[in-house]
Amino acid sequence: MPGEFSLIDRYFAGLTPPRDDVRLGIGDDAALLAMPAGQDLVLATDTLVAGVHFPGATAPEAVGHKALAVNLSDLAAMGAEPAWATLALTLPEADAAWLAGFAAGFGALAAAHGVALVGGDTTRGALTVTVTLAGRVPSGEALTRAGARPGDGIWVTGSLGDAGMALALLEAGKPVPEALRRRLDRPEPRLAAGRALRGLATAAIDVSDGLAADLGHLLQASGVGARVAAERLPRSAALRAAQADEAEGLRLALGAGDDYELCFTLPPAAEAAMNTRMAAIGWPVTWIGEIEAEPGLRLIDADGRERPAPGGFDHFGGP
Amino acid sequence: MPGEFSLIDRYFAGLTPPRDDVRLGIGDDAALLAMPAGQDLVLATDTLVAGVHFPGATAPEAVGHKALAVNLSDLAAMGAEPAWATLALTLPEADAAWLAGFAAGFGALAAAHGVALVGGDTTRGALTVTVTLAGRVPSGEALTRAGARPGDGIWVTGSLGDAGMALALLEAGKPVPEALRRRLDRPEPRLAAGRALRGLATAAIDVSDGLAADLGHLLQASGVGARVAAERLPRSAALRAAQADEAEGLRLALGAGDDYELCFTLPPAAEAAMNTRMAAIGWPVTWIGEIEAEPGLRLIDADGRERPAPGGFDHFGGP
Repeated sequence: MPGEFSLIDRYFAGLTPPRDDVRLGIGDDAALLAMPAGQDLVLATDTLVAGVHFPGATAPEAVGHKALAVNLSDLAAMGAEPAWATLALTLPEADAAWLAGFAAGFGALAAAHGVALVGGDTTRGALTVTVTLAGRVPSGEALTRAGARPGDGIWVTGSLGDAGMALALLEAGKPVPEALRRRLDRPEPRLAAGRALRGLATAAIDVSDGLAADLGHLLQASGVGARVAAERLPRSAALRAAQADEAEGLRLALGAGDDYELCFTLPPAAEAAMNTRMAAIGWPVTWIGEIEAEPGLRLIDADGRERPAPGGFDHFGGP
Repeated sequence: MPGEFSLIDRYFAGLTPPRDDVRLGIGDDAALLAMPAGQDLVLATDTLVAGVHFPGATAPEAVGHKALAVNLSDLAAMGAEPAWATLALTLPEADAAWLAGFAAGFGALAAAHGVALVGGDTTRGALTVTVTLAGRVPSGEALTRAGARPGDGIWVTGSLGDAGMALALLEAGKPVPEALRRRLDRPEPRLAAGRALRGLATAAIDVSDGLAADLGHLLQASGVGARVAAERLPRSAALRAAQADEAEGLRLALGAGDDYELCFTLPPAAEAAMNTRMAAIGWPVTWIGEIEAEPGLRLIDADGRERPAPGGFDHFGGP
């Protein structure tokens, strides 16, 4: 539906960086993109629905940021380099201020990661944003969910539960500290961390549905289980200050989604190299547990007792 | 949002063909796809919204078919070879019968064109379907909208206006002949025709918004104008039988969308080669006019007089 590119073209022109490998961008029937030899194409699609994935009153800049961030996070988890995005924007009306804000938020994050917007579609309907992100990874070097082995350590980047705390406060009508609000509205995908894990991590996933759920996916794909030390889950000072009690903080760190950190596994022999690389990019990582042969996720209390792990968030809750 | 792949995985498993170049499909954070050297990546995204792009009561099989078809048509217009699709499906509820029907329609067309479904996202909300289609074309051989030159002939594949006639009858509550209904619900993208035009056509576009609008985009991108002979516009026997009068048939052939034929230009010297290739794939093409240096689209009546050309369909009607 080529006529509809005009709306995207008008608001996004110049907001995402030019790239030499874009032979043809917005404005034809499809984009034409040059792929270097020896690289695999990496493709991810995510949809945000107003009222489901973000509160209806979210600033348009934050919606634009987040729509791209969730896809960048998927590419981070593969150790990939993002390159090109398409945007499918369904809008109740062509609201100029909203569109300009959305484009600014999307464009700033795209520019920060060198992503060019190369196509899209604008349609009328309930506010829904679908971004498809394409990128590249050297053939054979992608991180997947499937390589974790018994004895591997389990690690996460940054801190967990901040976005969930922000959402809980928001839904309770309470004030949300800026540090937490930012984690919910403007998640920063861990692309540098993902790239740094190439050749070291045995498996990786991004934490979008909650650590328990996402680590569960990794364990299932790898055919293994895990012990996770509850008190090791990294929680920020902002979360600790806002949590009603220790149990709430732990529940959020373990079960709340939208943090967009990376969870990864690697053998103890690779830890020193990983720590060196992570120190170089200046991003903290925390050991939280160990892969075991026995399937299932076992959460261990500070006193060494096993406790039931809460589930994550699945929109249709299917089996 | 990895947990949500499960819904797509459940309904689509085995419906789209396996491909050797899919290193990792549905079920990880992103798909991993092998690109051969010497080919450009071609990327298109289109969204269908219930009640806007298809009547709310459309059979789920037809929605699944059409969601992929509109993207295949974009790749056809580039002369590209489709390979991989992602699907973002927003649904009011997880209705098993609807999902099975949608998957069957999508899967049958994907199988016909060798397209593997490699990822996606399922979310809850108003029924909206976004497909992103990735494919390949030998570097430098893609067709674009931008190469038409004065003296080139203007051609279209198949027939125009059938889908528009079906929609008009449907909206008027009148019975819709099967031949017309099929054009609206199950458009057949002209991929073989697009590939056959590589190295011959100077410009191409698919007719999704209506011939006048889409040819207008081609003329604008090429910096040229055109004369189109109204009585040459190819109309099917089904359209001629259903049209209220000659004027309605012509208006639909010129202005109605959703036909998904190809409109292309080529110099007279390339006509014989083009006709040979099109005869080989068994798809009709019709000469409808000529590219001129003077900008604008001039529609010529049977008696040689110029008449005003109607506009196409643009969801936000922007300048």
